[in-house]
Amino acid sequence: MPFTYHRTIHFSDTDAAGVVYFANYLSICHEAYEEALAAAGADLARFFSDGGVLIPVSQSSADYLRPLVCGDKVAVSVKPSALAPDSFAIDYEVTRFARAGAPSKLAAKVRTRHVCIRAADRTRQPLPDAIANWVSAR
Amino acid sequence: MPFTYHRTIHFSDTDAAGVVYFANYLSICHEAYEEALAAAGADLARFFSDGGVLIPVSQSSADYLRPLVCGDKVAVSVKPSALAPDSFAIDYEVTRFARAGAPSKLAAKVRTRHVCIRAADRTRQPLPDAIANWVSAR
Amino acid sequence: MPFTYHRTIHFSDTDAAGVVYFANYLSICHEAYEEALAAAGADLARFFSDGGVLIPVSQSSADYLRPLVCGDKVAVSVKPSALAPDSFAIDYEVTRFARAGAPSKLAAKVRTRHVCIRAADRTRQPLPDAIANWVSAR
Amino acid sequence: MPFTYHRTIHFSDTDAAGVVYFANYLSICHEAYEEALAAAGADLARFFSDGGVLIPVSQSSADYLRPLVCGDKVAVSVKPSALAPDSFAIDYEVTRFARAGAPSKLAAKVRTRHVCIRAADRTRQPLPDAIANWVSAR
Repeated sequence: MPFTYHRTIHFSDTDAAGVVYFANYLSICHEAYEEALAAAGADLARFFSDGGVLIPVSQSSADYLRPLVCGDKVAVSVKPSALAPDSFAIDYEVTRFARAGAPSKLAAKVRTRHVCIRAADRTRQPLPDAIANWVSAR
Repeated sequence: MPFTYHRTIHFSDTDAAGVVYFANYLSICHEAYEEALAAAGADLARFFSDGGVLIPVSQSSADYLRPLVCGDKVAVSVKPSALAPDSFAIDYEVTRFARAGAPSKLAAKVRTRHVCIRAADRTRQPLPDAIANWVSAR
Repeated sequence: MPFTYHRTIHFSDTDAAGVVYFANYLSICHEAYEEALAAAGADLARFFSDGGVLIPVSQSSADYLRPLVCGDKVAVSVKPSALAPDSFAIDYEVTRFARAGAPSKLAAKVRTRHVCIRAADRTRQPLPDAIANWVSAR
Repeated sequence: MPFTYHRTIHFSDTDAAGVVYFANYLSICHEAYEEALAAAGADLARFFSDGGVLIPVSQSSADYLRPLVCGDKVAVSVKPSALAPDSFAIDYEVTRFARAGAPSKLAAKVRTRHVCIRAADRTRQPLPDAIANWVSAR
């Protein structure tokens, strides 16, 4: 079972078309990734701004399938997969919970790639054990 | 007891100084306001973009007391108070939960004012009953 | 020559890793798209929230090649291409201007797809002439 | 004459009420502050994330007077004033440029306070000369 993050859509996520701004789907998925890491024991304050090693997002792709409005409840599944000793991918599915009289629907599919680099010179590094274990355990 | 909203600080809330960007404290408080309204039965999708009546924020003030980092847990208390038939204020306190070995701390105090207007011509209107009741019940 | 948008990186674009948050590259590209439309004569206030027809982003993909820091100057090129009577794509290249002693560098490549739908029922519609002309003229 | 920053309202600045989200007025003012510092010769990448000294926003207040929509042009004036050896304030006025047939209008008044602290222990420090000079020259 993939890790699943539950979230309510906020007013600040929306734009003047009345729905979630497309780039904010990526932020919501990154929140889900953070929660998955925290659930696995990671210290987020260090994880994302440690001076030694960084694991930035190197690619993203997203299919925006259905609009989301303020107050919608979503579930985001998080499935990491290993790509190489220094990189991994995560597949996310954003599901919009049932509204009155309507079933739950897939609202977006998102994929991110992450590469581990040394902060000092941005050369590729093997993933730290903790993150490599998290990727392979899923 | 005021309504209290619980939230984890996300990476997207932070800036290059390593802490939550000052304007994002206001967004976090607005999320708390949305959750308080939803808990009182409001339909958020209609509440914030209804064609008839709008209740925009007309003023805000904030004291930023302590920094927040990615992964911090916060509680935001929401205390509305009536100002006039067409307006109310909300006082928020953002408390940072205890980190290892350190007590909980007040991280910010925020106040917003809200004014009810007719969307068509932006003239002031009495608050809808539902929101007036929510304000006076607290 | 593609339309090119010039932009300075702001503090609010960055995250605790000290660089632009990955999802914000997409926002910066969308700004470039808005500026390209405005330069072609579009009324943005109507374009993005007109009640009749919407043209949401249906897909995005991005390669994040180099980090951007607060104060960096970037140029974003905007190249639309027709896909079908109801859809088009845009390719963006985000170039980081030379810093002291270093040449300009490609910082990201982004692609978005856009589909025209009727707001009332979200069925696909041919692109309005103005946007179809903008796409084909580039 | 105060420093003035010119800006177009972007789609990402807006919310589902069709206008700029209230917290984003503060971000727009902070952009103006950054541009004022850059015009005075500051290196922004260092200014906002230098390890030695930080100058965070300690207070903000805002009066939101008129809504702004996507495509609106605004001018933001930036007036710093000294408060103490370790702090200063900035007053901003956000003016919405004339739309067809309508005059320019004041859209918001914003004030921020900034305090200089040592990053290591967050104790107050005198402002660096460069910033103290910028404050007093205005």
